[in-house]
Amino acid sequence: MPKLVDHQERREAIALALWRVVDHGGWNRATLREVAREAGVSLGQLQHYFASRAAMLSFAMDFAAERTADRVARGLAEVDQPPHPRDVLRLVLVEMLPLHPDARASSRMSAAYVLEALHDVALREQATLGLRDGRAMIEGLVRQAIAQGQIAPGRDPDVETDLILALTGFTPLLDLEVITPHAALAAIDQHLNRLFTDAAWSGPR
Amino acid sequence: MPKLVDHQERREAIALALWRVVDHGGWNRATLREVAREAGVSLGQLQHYFASRAAMLSFAMDFAAERTADRVARGLAEVDQPPHPRDVLRLVLVEMLPLHPDARASSRMSAAYVLEALHDVALREQATLGLRDGRAMIEGLVRQAIAQGQIAPGRDPDVETDLILALTGFTPLLDLEVITPHAALAAIDQHLNRLFTDAAWSGPR
Repeated sequence: MPKLVDHQERREAIALALWRVVDHGGWNRATLREVAREAGVSLGQLQHYFASRAAMLSFAMDFAAERTADRVARGLAEVDQPPHPRDVLRLVLVEMLPLHPDARASSRMSAAYVLEALHDVALREQATLGLRDGRAMIEGLVRQAIAQGQIAPGRDPDVETDLILALTGFTPLLDLEVITPHAALAAIDQHLNRLFTDAAWSGPR
Repeated sequence: MPKLVDHQERREAIALALWRVVDHGGWNRATLREVAREAGVSLGQLQHYFASRAAMLSFAMDFAAERTADRVARGLAEVDQPPHPRDVLRLVLVEMLPLHPDARASSRMSAAYVLEALHDVALREQATLGLRDGRAMIEGLVRQAIAQGQIAPGRDPDVETDLILALTGFTPLLDLEVITPHAALAAIDQHLNRLFTDAAWSGPR
C-alpha cells in the first residue's frame, strides 16, 4: 500500500519539522503555519495530514517515543545477551535525557507537551498513558531484577521504580548547563551501583 | 518610601495574576494582554510596571523563588533547632514539588520558564543563575552534613547533590497523576534514609 506509506512518511517529515521549530525557536513558535513553512509544505497540505495543532503534537510525541524506543533497541543489541536489567535501565535513562541532538529534541518536545497537556483533555490522556506505560516498563525491569537476585529482595519495587524515574529530573539541569553530561552519567551510575547487588553485571563500558 | 512599596505590591499582584493565568490556561495564554485582564488593570498600566513579557516573567520567577524560600523558612521554624541538614533538604524538596497550590503554580511557572529560557538570552542567564544558586545551596548542606558525620565521609558531595536535585524530576509525574504525593514523599524519604547515616535526626514527622 504505497499510498499509506507515503502518508506515514509525510507525517514523520512534518513531525521532524515540528521538532526543529521547537528546538530552534521554542514552543511558542510551534504553530501549524510555522511548521508548514519549516516542512516546505503549504498550510493547506499540512492540514490534510493534521486537522489541528493538538493532532500534530500528539503524533509528534508518539513518533518521539518510537524513535527513543528504537535508540534503546539499537543500544541493547550492543550489550551482552540476554541484556542485564541494569543495562536496559541505563540505556532508557540515557536516551530520555537531552544528551545528544535527537534525544534533546524529543526531551524538549516532551517537557512542553506535559505543560500543554495540563490544559488539554485529549493531550493529557495521551501524556498520562505514555508516562504510565514508561513507569510500568521500568517497574517490570525492577521486579524482574529482584526476582533474579540482581536487586536485593528487601527493596520496595514501587519506591525503586519512582527513584529511577526521578533521574529524568536532570533534564532542565542539562539543558541549562548547570550540570555536565559527565556529572549526570556519574550520578546515574552511582544510583544503579547502589541498587544492583549482583556480580553478574559486566561493569561500566 | 510609600511609593516604592506600592510599586512592589502592584508588581507582586501582577505576578500572582500571571501565575493564575498559567495555572488555569497554560503558558500560551500568558500574554501581557491576558495578564492585565486577570489583574484587573489596563494593558497600559501593566506596561508601566513591565516593559515586556520577558520582564514580567523574570519578575514572576524571582517572586516565586522568594515565596518558596519563605515557605521553607516557615517550615524550618517548626523543626528542632538548629535544623538538621536532612530536615532542610526535605523541606526544600517538598516545597519545590507541585504538592500544594502555591508550589504547583511556581513549579509550572518554572517548567515553562526553563523552556522559554532556552531561546531567550536574558531569561536563560537568570534561569541558569537561579538553578546554580539552588544547586550551591544544596551542595553546601551536603558538605556540612559530611563534615558533621551525618553523611558518610566516603560519599561524593557532587554526586549526592545531583541525586538530590534529580528528585525534582517527580514534577511531571505528580502533575499528570502518574504517581501520588504519598509515593513521591516515600521515595524522597527512602533516598534521604540511605544518604544520612547518623542517629541525631529525630525521625519522620
